[in-house]
Amino acid sequence: MAVGSESKSKPIKRIVILGGGFGGVYTAQHLGKLLRGRSDVEICIVNDENYFVFQPMLAEVVSGNIGILDTVTPIGRIAPQANVYVRSIEHIDLAEQTVILSPGLAKHAAKLKYDHLVVALGNVTDFHKSPGLHAHALPFKNLADALRLRDRAIRVLGDARIEPDEMRRREMLTFVIGGGGFSGVEVAAELNDFIRRTAHKYFHIDPSEPRIILVHSHERILDREMPESLALYAQKVMRKQGVEFIFNRHVVSATPGFTLLDDGTRIVSRTLVSTVPSSPNPLVTDLGLKSDHGRLVTDGQLLVEGCSNVWSLGDCAAVPKSGGGGTCPPTAQFAVRQAKTLAHNIVAAIDGGKQQTFKFAELGKLAALGRRRAVGQLFNKINIHGFTAWVFWRAVYWAKLPGLDRKLRVAGSWLLEFMLPPDLVQTGVDRRRGLTEEFHEAGGCVFKQGDFGNRCYIIATGKAEIVHHDADGEERVVAQLGPTDCFGASEVLQDTAYPASVRCIEATKLLVVPKEDFLKFAEALPSLADRFNAINQKMEAAAAEYSANSATA
Amino acid sequence: MAVGSESKSKPIKRIVILGGGFGGVYTAQHLGKLLRGRSDVEICIVNDENYFVFQPMLAEVVSGNIGILDTVTPIGRIAPQANVYVRSIEHIDLAEQTVILSPGLAKHAAKLKYDHLVVALGNVTDFHKSPGLHAHALPFKNLADALRLRDRAIRVLGDARIEPDEMRRREMLTFVIGGGGFSGVEVAAELNDFIRRTAHKYFHIDPSEPRIILVHSHERILDREMPESLALYAQKVMRKQGVEFIFNRHVVSATPGFTLLDDGTRIVSRTLVSTVPSSPNPLVTDLGLKSDHGRLVTDGQLLVEGCSNVWSLGDCAAVPKSGGGGTCPPTAQFAVRQAKTLAHNIVAAIDGGKQQTFKFAELGKLAALGRRRAVGQLFNKINIHGFTAWVFWRAVYWAKLPGLDRKLRVAGSWLLEFMLPPDLVQTGVDRRRGLTEEFHEAGGCVFKQGDFGNRCYIIATGKAEIVHHDADGEERVVAQLGPTDCFGASEVLQDTAYPASVRCIEATKLLVVPKEDFLKFAEALPSLADRFNAINQKMEAAAAEYSANSATA
Repeated sequence: MAVGSESKSKPIKRIVILGGGFGGVYTAQHLGKLLRGRSDVEICIVNDENYFVFQPMLAEVVSGNIGILDTVTPIGRIAPQANVYVRSIEHIDLAEQTVILSPGLAKHAAKLKYDHLVVALGNVTDFHKSPGLHAHALPFKNLADALRLRDRAIRVLGDARIEPDEMRRREMLTFVIGGGGFSGVEVAAELNDFIRRTAHKYFHIDPSEPRIILVHSHERILDREMPESLALYAQKVMRKQGVEFIFNRHVVSATPGFTLLDDGTRIVSRTLVSTVPSSPNPLVTDLGLKSDHGRLVTDGQLLVEGCSNVWSLGDCAAVPKSGGGGTCPPTAQFAVRQAKTLAHNIVAAIDGGKQQTFKFAELGKLAALGRRRAVGQLFNKINIHGFTAWVFWRAVYWAKLPGLDRKLRVAGSWLLEFMLPPDLVQTGVDRRRGLTEEFHEAGGCVFKQGDFGNRCYIIATGKAEIVHHDADGEERVVAQLGPTDCFGASEVLQDTAYPASVRCIEATKLLVVPKEDFLKFAEALPSLADRFNAINQKMEAAAAEYSANSATA
Repeated sequence: MAVGSESKSKPIKRIVILGGGFGGVYTAQHLGKLLRGRSDVEICIVNDENYFVFQPMLAEVVSGNIGILDTVTPIGRIAPQANVYVRSIEHIDLAEQTVILSPGLAKHAAKLKYDHLVVALGNVTDFHKSPGLHAHALPFKNLADALRLRDRAIRVLGDARIEPDEMRRREMLTFVIGGGGFSGVEVAAELNDFIRRTAHKYFHIDPSEPRIILVHSHERILDREMPESLALYAQKVMRKQGVEFIFNRHVVSATPGFTLLDDGTRIVSRTLVSTVPSSPNPLVTDLGLKSDHGRLVTDGQLLVEGCSNVWSLGDCAAVPKSGGGGTCPPTAQFAVRQAKTLAHNIVAAIDGGKQQTFKFAELGKLAALGRRRAVGQLFNKINIHGFTAWVFWRAVYWAKLPGLDRKLRVAGSWLLEFMLPPDLVQTGVDRRRGLTEEFHEAGGCVFKQGDFGNRCYIIATGKAEIVHHDADGEERVVAQLGPTDCFGASEVLQDTAYPASVRCIEATKLLVVPKEDFLKFAEALPSLADRFNAINQKMEAAAAEYSANSATA
């Protein structure tokens, strides 16, 4: 099952880089330059996608200021000397010096032996702590997330245009953003821009209807990232553009129809974007190495403590700051500089040269606020804001874009943005296929009597009840449902309306099987279909009995 | 559940257009112009996507000559007066004058009453006639299809670079295109262009390895579309560029590893694109109206025979040709002209004006062959080919692109194409989620002993056997599997290699459950997991017993 050098005659050293973010990709690039023309060292980089995401511009994809692929670059373009493995990592075995990769097109897993390992896995968004977030909140980390949010916005605008029900329109047109750091602020600003620019003009929606609400756990946004004066300026600018703020609160759960805050506030909304601080990557945690708040502890040369050939950098590493005191912050500018030092040190380790110590002082920080406004702080002392800061923001990040082609494309998009209407194509990534989850708080309705169904449900945890309403609106509880109970199938098969409602008695997690999948399953596994039918007969019988009673009464 | 006019005070006439292709979208546009400012008529258009696909340029998305969104336009941009319903159509009820739409974001179906109905549903690709095509062939009709093919090409190039096994590389690097009409020829040409331009330069693949094979059921390509001399010229040009042809054959089935032709030839390949002639849309067939080869028969005014308020146009309609003799061909130029006549006639029907009869003579036909070459015939007599025809092709279709913004974007993309390297980002639409199907011919291996699994299987139809190989390579059949048998789960749960192979005894259709979905199911429905375990214990026990036997022998 082993691939790569094993099939070649001459044994060579292999450097395996895990992760295709700033740290990993720039390490591969620098290694490629240092090792150009040498066939005795192989550089491998493993990533879930074949591209690198230029994170600072990701929010601009939402507003459509740049094209949807402008912010991503194929890893092979940045690091042409590296072999790119577009695979998930199943397991890292430090003792065997081996990484197991998930099956790709080849249908079988690959074992990659390494001489040097670079852990650049960043961190992950972990929604499992808050119920419903995994099922209903949109993360904002990669290209798919940005496209999904953009698609969602276009979709609710289109649906709201033809939706006569006030309440449903309010649900559709309210967007909640959780988290007031760089990411939350930029997403809120760009989403707000996009909605304000298009809702009335292209979808005939009253400008007062859409709401963009940012929920933050502190008393002002950017409280850790920016000095108070700049943060307050940012808030003022964003408020003027129509963003609302809720401070000193955080999101505790989410359902299909509302977001719940810690003080019990329910914000009626179909869209929650969560930019909450991320958790360490479980692959990093599982290594069992010394860590600091989930980040691998390295020395000044970026070698992981206790290891001789495992290196780490970027957001998943705790690298000592030069000039003493603390570790480097998890930002792109540090990761990119660490990559250069790290590449040098690995080559030095292979060839027997001198190790370098990582040294870098932060240049500054910038946040875009939408509509040609930004805030920033340079060299930890010069504050800039407004249009100047925005021009600065664009100039800095444009210069940092990898590759001439992206630079040209982004410049082209920025130019066209002045002249052309925004693009309103739904790319379709929003359409989740396969099994999904749904979470309801007590009292939440899974569906209402009379709705048409195109999905079936299995209760994973929690309790629900089947409720029947008669013509006068009086309701009667027909049956209780608990874990492993299945319902909703016969309506899918018969294309009829649900004969009763299903309402949750307590917080309930459901597994949702889409019609298409259910039909395939029912064909191949009749016993599964029977499970669904049992509950359904109960629902229908009770409804029929009730109708009969009403008729005789 | 009804939406739209029902909620307004004044009863208005509603025109419902089904389908967002050339016929539907241009009807909506013309109606919008004719009815501008009138609030007594509502125009609704229903389509699965919120965008219109400019089909003639779709193949260019594969080669990356144009940006991935350049070829699609939001329907709302072309027909701003229309209400766009981004929904699937569940049912058309002619007696009730009602269309039922699938649930959208609103989670419930919508009933749309109409006064006039326009059926512009085109046709559909139906793979169900040939076993395995539904599971393994890629269609080529909409944007997602084009992106999927592009992603697939990038993915196999990337995987082939790191795959040492010759046979697997050959599978990966062979692309089969079924069908030699306009669509098949253009896909083959553009795919060939893309592969030849990138394989060696960016993926270090030997230029002799990739093969692009076009299979056509006649003795030359474009046999129905172009005169013989032009078709032979096209073949010569494409052959020179590296496309191979197999004539007088057609594809009869497909498996994960090969494409089977009617003479028994097996082409080892992972990618089959099928552009075979399409079938009528089942929604159209279900109407029970008079049809001609599946197309609704209309009169010269585009009114469907036997109806007073149902109209049809485009590929799903059999419209009498002006000047007598036969019906209009299913091409965009006819649909676009029919739309204008149809819009006039509906307004005339509402306001009591005079009906027009559809009249149009074909202007010509063009096919792009890649690398700045094309063939064409104008006014049924002037033949053009080569670079001139290619310039003509670009000029004609560029002029027909809807909207100034698309025109600018496409022009920009064409310009950049000269200067910039091709884009190699995988958009990720290739990644199928949810349940999929897999088809094997007799003797086909589902997986081999020692493979790592990340999916489980349920047999839908057919028979397979569990085969165990000992260290000497000798094999023993351990058990037989039939419909509803499930296997492969315990490896998924334990992340271990399969202890035996599964080989099909006859043509077998499998349902494939991805790891992610299986884990969710197993948690919510332990009984389903048990089903999988039963087979698995058999597989493991047999393997263990055999090992024990071998040890004592």
